[in-house]
Amino acid sequence: MVILGVDPGLRFTGYGALKLSGPPGPGVSVSIVEAGVFKLPPKASISDRLVELATDFGELLGRVQPQAVAVEMLYAHYKHPVTAIIMGHARGVLLHTIRKHNLRLVELRPTEVKKSVTGHGHAAKPQIQAAVQAEFRLAQPPEPPDIADALAIALCASRRAAWAEDMPPELPDDDHDTD
Amino acid sequence: MVILGVDPGLRFTGYGALKLSGPPGPGVSVSIVEAGVFKLPPKASISDRLVELATDFGELLGRVQPQAVAVEMLYAHYKHPVTAIIMGHARGVLLHTIRKHNLRLVELRPTEVKKSVTGHGHAAKPQIQAAVQAEFRLAQPPEPPDIADALAIALCASRRAAWAEDMPPELPDDDHDTD
Repeated sequence: MVILGVDPGLRFTGYGALKLSGPPGPGVSVSIVEAGVFKLPPKASISDRLVELATDFGELLGRVQPQAVAVEMLYAHYKHPVTAIIMGHARGVLLHTIRKHNLRLVELRPTEVKKSVTGHGHAAKPQIQAAVQAEFRLAQPPEPPDIADALAIALCASRRAAWAEDMPPELPDDDHDTD
Repeated sequence: MVILGVDPGLRFTGYGALKLSGPPGPGVSVSIVEAGVFKLPPKASISDRLVELATDFGELLGRVQPQAVAVEMLYAHYKHPVTAIIMGHARGVLLHTIRKHNLRLVELRPTEVKKSVTGHGHAAKPQIQAAVQAEFRLAQPPEPPDIADALAIALCASRRAAWAEDMPPELPDDDHDTD
C-alpha cells in the first residue's frame, strides 16, 4: 500500500508518498514513491493559489494512488496565528480533496511525528531533515524542510500499527465567535 | 446585479444575497434575494463538513447567480486561534469554490462592515442584528447572527462605489514556519 504525507501551506505544501512492504506497523519497511513540494506563486491571490493547490494535489493523488493520506493534527498554540489561519485555508482545501477522493485520512500529533523519526517529540526542523535523510539514505537533506516534514508524517503513519482503529478524533466544534 | 455576502465557519456559515437597484455605491437600494445559514453537523469530521459546505455553497451560487461574493478580510488578532484556524478551513474551501466559478471576490475589513451598517466600527453582534433588521424591515433580528453578519457584508459591499477598482490586497505570504 501507499501512504501519502502532506504538510500544507499556501507558500509551500510538502508531500511524500511511501510504499510499504507490508501492513502498517512498527517493523514495516518503506520506500519513497515520490516526494516534493508544491510552490505556490507568492504574488497570486489566496484564491488563485488554492485553485492551483487543489489541482496539483488532485493530480498527485491520481499519480501515486495512495490508500491513505496523513496530515498533522491542529494544535492550540501557534507562534504565528495569521500564518496558521492561512495554513488552515490550504489544509481545508486538501481535506476536501482527500474526502472527495474517498481516501482514508490519518491525523497525527506533531509530537508523535517528531518522536517517530528523531526519537524526541520536540525536534527542530534541521533534526527532522537529518533524520529523514538518514532513514532514506538520501544524498542531501530534503529542501525545503516541508518535504522532510511530509516524509516524516508519512513514515510515522506507516509505523503505526493501529491507525485503522484508533484514528484520533478531529477537533471539537468551532463556534461562530471568531471576532 | 446580485452580491452575495458570506460569513464562513465549520458550524454555521451565514449567507445573504442582495439584488441591487443599480451599480454599487453609497446610494444604491437593495433587496434580499435569499439569506440563510448552512448548519454543518457538529459530530461529522471536518473533512465531511467541508465536502457538505462546498456542495451547499456551489448549489447556492447556482441558485442566486451572484456577480460578486463578499467576505471579511482576515485580521491579525483572533480571540480564539484554533477556532480561527478551523474557520480558515471553511474560508479556504469557499474561496476555492468562488474562484472555480470565476466570480469576483470582494474582501472587506470587519470594521468597515460594522461601520457601514451600524455607524461604528466596533459594534457588537446584537447591534449588527438590529441594524440589519431595521435596514430590511424584518419582523425579527436574523438568527443565528451569522445571517445578519453575511447580510451586513453584502450590504457594505453594495454601498462601496469603488470595489471594482480598489479591492484590498489579500494577505501577505505565509511561510512554512507554522509550528
